[in-house]
Amino acid sequence: MPEPPSVPMSATLAADEAMARRRRAGEQVLSMTSGEIGLPVHPALAERLAAAAHENAYGPVSGSEALREAAAGYWGRRGLDTDPGLVVAGPGSKPLLFALLLAVGGDVVVPVPSWVSYAAQARLAGARPVAVPILPGEGGVPDPERLREAVVVARAAGQDPRSVVVTVPDNPTGTIASPGTVRRLAGVARELGLVIVSDEIYCDLVHDVSTPAESPALHAPERTVVTTGLTKNLALGGWRTGVARLPDGDLGRALHGRLVSIASQIWSSPTAPVQAAAAYAFGEPPELTAHIAASRRLHAAVVRAAADRFTAAGAVLAPVRATSYLYPDFEPVRGRLARTHGIHGGDDLTRFLSERHGVGVLPASAFGESGNVLRIRAATSRLYGDTDERRRAALAAPDPLELPWIRAAVDRIGTVLTGLTAPAPSPAASPS
Amino acid sequence: MPEPPSVPMSATLAADEAMARRRRAGEQVLSMTSGEIGLPVHPALAERLAAAAHENAYGPVSGSEALREAAAGYWGRRGLDTDPGLVVAGPGSKPLLFALLLAVGGDVVVPVPSWVSYAAQARLAGARPVAVPILPGEGGVPDPERLREAVVVARAAGQDPRSVVVTVPDNPTGTIASPGTVRRLAGVARELGLVIVSDEIYCDLVHDVSTPAESPALHAPERTVVTTGLTKNLALGGWRTGVARLPDGDLGRALHGRLVSIASQIWSSPTAPVQAAAAYAFGEPPELTAHIAASRRLHAAVVRAAADRFTAAGAVLAPVRATSYLYPDFEPVRGRLARTHGIHGGDDLTRFLSERHGVGVLPASAFGESGNVLRIRAATSRLYGDTDERRRAALAAPDPLELPWIRAAVDRIGTVLTGLTAPAPSPAASPS
Repeated sequence: MPEPPSVPMSATLAADEAMARRRRAGEQVLSMTSGEIGLPVHPALAERLAAAAHENAYGPVSGSEALREAAAGYWGRRGLDTDPGLVVAGPGSKPLLFALLLAVGGDVVVPVPSWVSYAAQARLAGARPVAVPILPGEGGVPDPERLREAVVVARAAGQDPRSVVVTVPDNPTGTIASPGTVRRLAGVARELGLVIVSDEIYCDLVHDVSTPAESPALHAPERTVVTTGLTKNLALGGWRTGVARLPDGDLGRALHGRLVSIASQIWSSPTAPVQAAAAYAFGEPPELTAHIAASRRLHAAVVRAAADRFTAAGAVLAPVRATSYLYPDFEPVRGRLARTHGIHGGDDLTRFLSERHGVGVLPASAFGESGNVLRIRAATSRLYGDTDERRRAALAAPDPLELPWIRAAVDRIGTVLTGLTAPAPSPAASPS
Repeated sequence: MPEPPSVPMSATLAADEAMARRRRAGEQVLSMTSGEIGLPVHPALAERLAAAAHENAYGPVSGSEALREAAAGYWGRRGLDTDPGLVVAGPGSKPLLFALLLAVGGDVVVPVPSWVSYAAQARLAGARPVAVPILPGEGGVPDPERLREAVVVARAAGQDPRSVVVTVPDNPTGTIASPGTVRRLAGVARELGLVIVSDEIYCDLVHDVSTPAESPALHAPERTVVTTGLTKNLALGGWRTGVARLPDGDLGRALHGRLVSIASQIWSSPTAPVQAAAAYAFGEPPELTAHIAASRRLHAAVVRAAADRFTAAGAVLAPVRATSYLYPDFEPVRGRLARTHGIHGGDDLTRFLSERHGVGVLPASAFGESGNVLRIRAATSRLYGDTDERRRAALAAPDPLELPWIRAAVDRIGTVLTGLTAPAPSPAASPS
């Protein structure tokens, strides 16, 4: 007799829809709410989709052989040899993550902060999320020592954690857990018998390609499920396409069977015409790797310029090494924010930026933190222009910050933030 | 601490994949396992999809305004005035049905027999399905009197049924519950406080358009959720597109909010390029209504010809009035099947037809009945040809049974069935 689960609407999607409504109503809003990548579809992908428009069969639940082989090759080129028979494609990595939580069963450890949907999905699957903080500057992976403690405590209290979700590179912090932390996480997961669900959707958006993110699948190959998709690297969020890589061995094969059964009962199969284009994309032809490289440079330039505005205004944040996300902490200016604007936490700050300045961000509470924490997440991936022409120009620009619309957006962030944290005028200096 | 739910793989999809493997291995199989409609994509839809290939934004969780307005118009033309704000589009009606069961909460009443996924979805949602038999010849709707008894008994035993799923017209039986039965079902649901989830994906495949299926939403508008999609009428199963219509009023608005939240956490939004084509389709332009009319005539002709072969072989079945499904009962020849072939139920019969004759059907047990019941479901929607050319010819044919490949398929069914139920040679007549 389950009660209807009381999950909120996805904070990113809800905030994004709200900003879109305000924009349509004529307001000058600056949306940094959702991580949707505001870049055009590469023409080669649009062509593949169009060419597959006659495909209307369900095909295999786990996706076409061509798609699964292409995804296996994609992982193979990243050091993870992959059996296409252990790949499952789905309508986005989001439903795959949900189905994986159902397939593993038990309760789920999630890092704090972490993506808005892990804990909600765990609750929808009937599980209780176990929250474990990250190490400073290493988002997406729970501190391995605290993970061990939390699981021992949870088990003693009658909970049954069986999996831990990690995000490498990380949303919301834009950081990457160090190889040492990932290795220790893998060791603790093995010791505790946890399945690692590694969400690697940002793996192609590490700014410095010479220091890629390290997958826990390298250290605990027998228990790590990896998910990814084309939403971030190729800006195909609206196409809904993702893939999961199940571990080889008994555990992985059992999980694969359960995952495919669950997929067959919830969504049948991924969209057929999209699969054709996705198979092409995972094959990584040169024009798409060049496109991804250009988008990576663009993300890095703009997110770092925005980060500078946040630090100039007195916030602190770990260096952004991947994605287009910022997770600044306004703790150093807490007193000033409270005195000047009555802002006492991330929720207040988010409301203030939205209502006073039309700037959309998300509060830390959307990522599992307390509403009093003075952190917000800002995504810069929607600042590249409102038309495909501008977005193409942004991709091609040697210095995207010289493009007037990007410069204007970043400057506006700076102006708003400087005003936000400027000292209140001293009574002594006032004329009266 | 949920155990991994032990749902089987969707019986239709599993059997369909097995038949596809045998076909690829060179076997001469005749697949009547899945209800996938073996007809081509209408060129106007392929064009719309191709034209929308550049669309990569998520858009609203509940689908684009254009799609929701088109779906509202579609229902309006069928006597159900619809607020586009209460329409939710998803990647198939299947995930919408699952999310609806989560949104309503509690346990779920399902008819017996009924589509393979309702009970499995209920279990994935943490609910216990309550099985209630249909009235003879009126598939898809639980006998209203037995529904009342079952819910009272279930509640007394501590279960909490809050919804009843119905299928009008019905899969697996190809029948349509009478208006009187639908009205009584609606009355009992109101009396018991149940939400009615009415799966109307076959509503455009009623053979005689002068006697359409009646939706329970006409009789219990305040508590009926209607789902449909383009999988059956336009053969777009592989495109994964469906819509739900939530009831107006407090109950419906609360359910709508929960449904959209759940959708946002499981699948984000329907595939954007598909939404563009789906909006066009739900607008019902003349070339698509003509296409659907042609497919309806084709389904009726072939499923009825196949039904005749089943009755000629001694099975009984209610007249098929919609869809391309047959649900024959071999009870009248039970003794003969047992003596001649050692067949004692639908499971045995299915295995025999598959292994001995390469004919794929599904046993009644896949639809919630006992394995000993001598019923099977056969779908004729894959008999129209293996190439788009043949499938187009089938759609255009004044009498599709004159096309040699369709005639051959139906004749093969007849031959296999006649052999199956022919009397064993009498010992007296044998030469020795």
